[in-house]
Amino acid sequence: MTDINSPHTSIARHTASAVYVRERDLVEELIGKVSFTQMMILQLLGRMPTPAETAVLDAVLVTIMEHGHTPSSIVTRLIYDSAPEALQSAVAAGLLGVAGTFVGTMEGCAKLIDEILADPGGIEAGATAVATRIRAARQPLPGFGHPFHKPDDPRSPRLMAVAEAAGVPGRHIAALKALSAAVDKAWGRHLTINATGAIAAVLGEIGMPQGVMRGIAVISRAAGLVGHIYEEQRIPTARHIWDAVGEAVPYRAEGK
Amino acid sequence: MTDINSPHTSIARHTASAVYVRERDLVEELIGKVSFTQMMILQLLGRMPTPAETAVLDAVLVTIMEHGHTPSSIVTRLIYDSAPEALQSAVAAGLLGVAGTFVGTMEGCAKLIDEILADPGGIEAGATAVATRIRAARQPLPGFGHPFHKPDDPRSPRLMAVAEAAGVPGRHIAALKALSAAVDKAWGRHLTINATGAIAAVLGEIGMPQGVMRGIAVISRAAGLVGHIYEEQRIPTARHIWDAVGEAVPYRAEGK
Amino acid sequence: MTDINSPHTSIARHTASAVYVRERDLVEELIGKVSFTQMMILQLLGRMPTPAETAVLDAVLVTIMEHGHTPSSIVTRLIYDSAPEALQSAVAAGLLGVAGTFVGTMEGCAKLIDEILADPGGIEAGATAVATRIRAARQPLPGFGHPFHKPDDPRSPRLMAVAEAAGVPGRHIAALKALSAAVDKAWGRHLTINATGAIAAVLGEIGMPQGVMRGIAVISRAAGLVGHIYEEQRIPTARHIWDAVGEAVPYRAEGK
Amino acid sequence: MTDINSPHTSIARHTASAVYVRERDLVEELIGKVSFTQMMILQLLGRMPTPAETAVLDAVLVTIMEHGHTPSSIVTRLIYDSAPEALQSAVAAGLLGVAGTFVGTMEGCAKLIDEILADPGGIEAGATAVATRIRAARQPLPGFGHPFHKPDDPRSPRLMAVAEAAGVPGRHIAALKALSAAVDKAWGRHLTINATGAIAAVLGEIGMPQGVMRGIAVISRAAGLVGHIYEEQRIPTARHIWDAVGEAVPYRAEGK
Repeated sequence: MTDINSPHTSIARHTASAVYVRERDLVEELIGKVSFTQMMILQLLGRMPTPAETAVLDAVLVTIMEHGHTPSSIVTRLIYDSAPEALQSAVAAGLLGVAGTFVGTMEGCAKLIDEILADPGGIEAGATAVATRIRAARQPLPGFGHPFHKPDDPRSPRLMAVAEAAGVPGRHIAALKALSAAVDKAWGRHLTINATGAIAAVLGEIGMPQGVMRGIAVISRAAGLVGHIYEEQRIPTARHIWDAVGEAVPYRAEGK
Repeated sequence: MTDINSPHTSIARHTASAVYVRERDLVEELIGKVSFTQMMILQLLGRMPTPAETAVLDAVLVTIMEHGHTPSSIVTRLIYDSAPEALQSAVAAGLLGVAGTFVGTMEGCAKLIDEILADPGGIEAGATAVATRIRAARQPLPGFGHPFHKPDDPRSPRLMAVAEAAGVPGRHIAALKALSAAVDKAWGRHLTINATGAIAAVLGEIGMPQGVMRGIAVISRAAGLVGHIYEEQRIPTARHIWDAVGEAVPYRAEGK
Repeated sequence: MTDINSPHTSIARHTASAVYVRERDLVEELIGKVSFTQMMILQLLGRMPTPAETAVLDAVLVTIMEHGHTPSSIVTRLIYDSAPEALQSAVAAGLLGVAGTFVGTMEGCAKLIDEILADPGGIEAGATAVATRIRAARQPLPGFGHPFHKPDDPRSPRLMAVAEAAGVPGRHIAALKALSAAVDKAWGRHLTINATGAIAAVLGEIGMPQGVMRGIAVISRAAGLVGHIYEEQRIPTARHIWDAVGEAVPYRAEGK
Repeated sequence: MTDINSPHTSIARHTASAVYVRERDLVEELIGKVSFTQMMILQLLGRMPTPAETAVLDAVLVTIMEHGHTPSSIVTRLIYDSAPEALQSAVAAGLLGVAGTFVGTMEGCAKLIDEILADPGGIEAGATAVATRIRAARQPLPGFGHPFHKPDDPRSPRLMAVAEAAGVPGRHIAALKALSAAVDKAWGRHLTINATGAIAAVLGEIGMPQGVMRGIAVISRAAGLVGHIYEEQRIPTARHIWDAVGEAVPYRAEGK
């Protein structure tokens, strides 16, 4: 009798004439029949997605892919210039920046949403409790606020509208909206729900586990960074970046 | 007057109320309207893809995503176990293996196809010249042969069939097929066109620049690796891998 | 008047005929005159080290460099096999495992030592308070315990003896020893001070900031991993590792 | 009978009470007795170094560690700001730039030196042949030339002098000097031997295998990058770098 918990993988296997991913025949059932986004959900969750799940994941991946100059894209361009023979290094280096500072807020907001949904007093009571507690502790509020999209991050309402139009249950979105109302009250002014907050809600709607939400950002940004590499191949900027940093961060002897 | 070659980026910009990628309004024109795969082509090539381009890129991304245990997936699982607080590190480490040994053949085969297409004597003459030269030099033939998919890699005909059904011009595929015939003759036995060979041909069909073909593999594998992380979270294997390596690669004093 | 806090660097500068690191002439004052370990302290702390500081840092770097098969060394070997053209990728991938699981305990133990040293009641009172609190909370105790070095990790007393012989002040070591005594009492059995615990203490003795202690492990392990690459070049193991993982972690359809 | 080539490792092993690296007892024979640099040679070459080997490797590691702003140090600072919880990511990202563009020349120059040393006509004939061939082919000359250290890179004569004073055999240095004379003649003007050229020669003198020379640069730069992280913790520059790049590389719609 096999121990169901002994180390194993259930993702893929192959024979001389076939490859199976999640027990689907890659050649007969998947290539040419499912989109990359559908395949991604099959890979992750072990089952074919519903149209709503695909629509929401596509919307999220489209939203995160590109932001212009970011630490990640600058890093990718610099490493590409130093290692043009190893394109994968440039992407990997950039992805190392998809971390606490920028996408940690997605996971933080997802946790708040889960807390609100678990509140026995209901969503509004839960939202008020969360907002009040964070405000009192003067802690940062993950998923809210944006340095230049003011008063509102335009991506957030769009993401939630796409999810609602696709027919998701709507509980995570409702929790986030309740939190937003409670936050505005607790702070005494309007804080926008930013894109990472909205993404936490809509990924929650399609059952994306919180532990891999950051992975969705990593996949999407990988595509964005390949775009920066292709542009860098045609319009090199790395040496200009290097020069600009030399001017912006000059040398000064310690204590001088 | 602006120097058209001075350092700049044409990928994305934003205002307080909008984000533009390739001059498309992210919120109004892209989120909820295009798939991740379409967005990827817009990001890379600066224009919306045709349905054929999207179909081919989806087929390629679906093909590459997952191969069961690979060096990349093993690496990702080990690093995830060592750094569960930094999921992006586990993906980045695995992606560093998407390199010369495994995907370098894609680029190598793409170069051979370009050489055949540029032959003034036509595709068949070009294919014969390439096959004969490589055979005579006893060099490796990128895009051909497979360690366990024998006699044929099932993914290759499927990828080319999907591309043809989508209505691509077909010249790169014709060149690869001509090369395959010439190779079988020069080698005196059948060598399969493997998946990296077929991918080189179909990505050539949709105008994907050879310099970023490896990037397509990187994006697709990123998604595959996130799947391995999610499985590792539920069925930990890293410590078993560590033990298995200890047994498979024992210590032995130098020269003993 | 210059704002002393405006962005700048005080590490290095150069002219056409000279390079200066921390205001020392690299060619005249450093190359051939200081060891790598001394140079490292100059780079970090901005001043030449005392002999005691050099002795302690050397001892720490020597201790951490090599552990036989570890997740990091396995990762480095696998990535090297996949990307032999990019040796730096293999090292970087392995270093991504120098993270929370294995060296996070060094920083955790350093924090406990700082807490004990700051206790107004003195070292013994501080140690008892820390041990009691962690035991009561049933939390893990960073810097203590080892899976196979029992009853004692032999590296720890040696590291502390080297530091004491070098003439460090000894307060961090005293705090760790006091903690060890309090821990044995609180747990009712002996827990070894492990190498990361001893390193936290001796690096504290030489004023190494806690925020870069992990960096010391990263530097040392980089050297260890280059050794694994050189061995892999002569005695390839990567394909055997791949096979061994396939057997140790077999495929099984989900739920079967 | 054991197959001497079957997969194994000869680097390290441990028992409950001891760790052995290259069959030396880590605690009894190494910690507190050898420097990090000596340990590195033991790890790599499997034997204790001579004083000359240690002196040369120290000189090389000291030379490479720090260069002020470089793509690697900029990358490390940006990733550290994005992922302060994962210091190792910042170092790893920076190390991915220790690649073809900047240190590939070290390996390229080492190959030229080997070619000269293998010339049956002797060093001068070999040097002339190499210089003439590369000049005629208008190829880049690895190990020669420097963008701002003109007319001479001050590090190169110093490195060779340190090696000679340490008592190395001197053949690699002689070959490089012969190449330098032949190059000046073939080019009709003076090209400096740069630091990577001199390093190739002196590492050759101590028998460092060409296949891991890049690894020496990786180790040394790891230490340099940890220094940049510690400075970044006290004098943050990442956000200034981001702003500076935005100005240096502005957005411009494609073709505008």
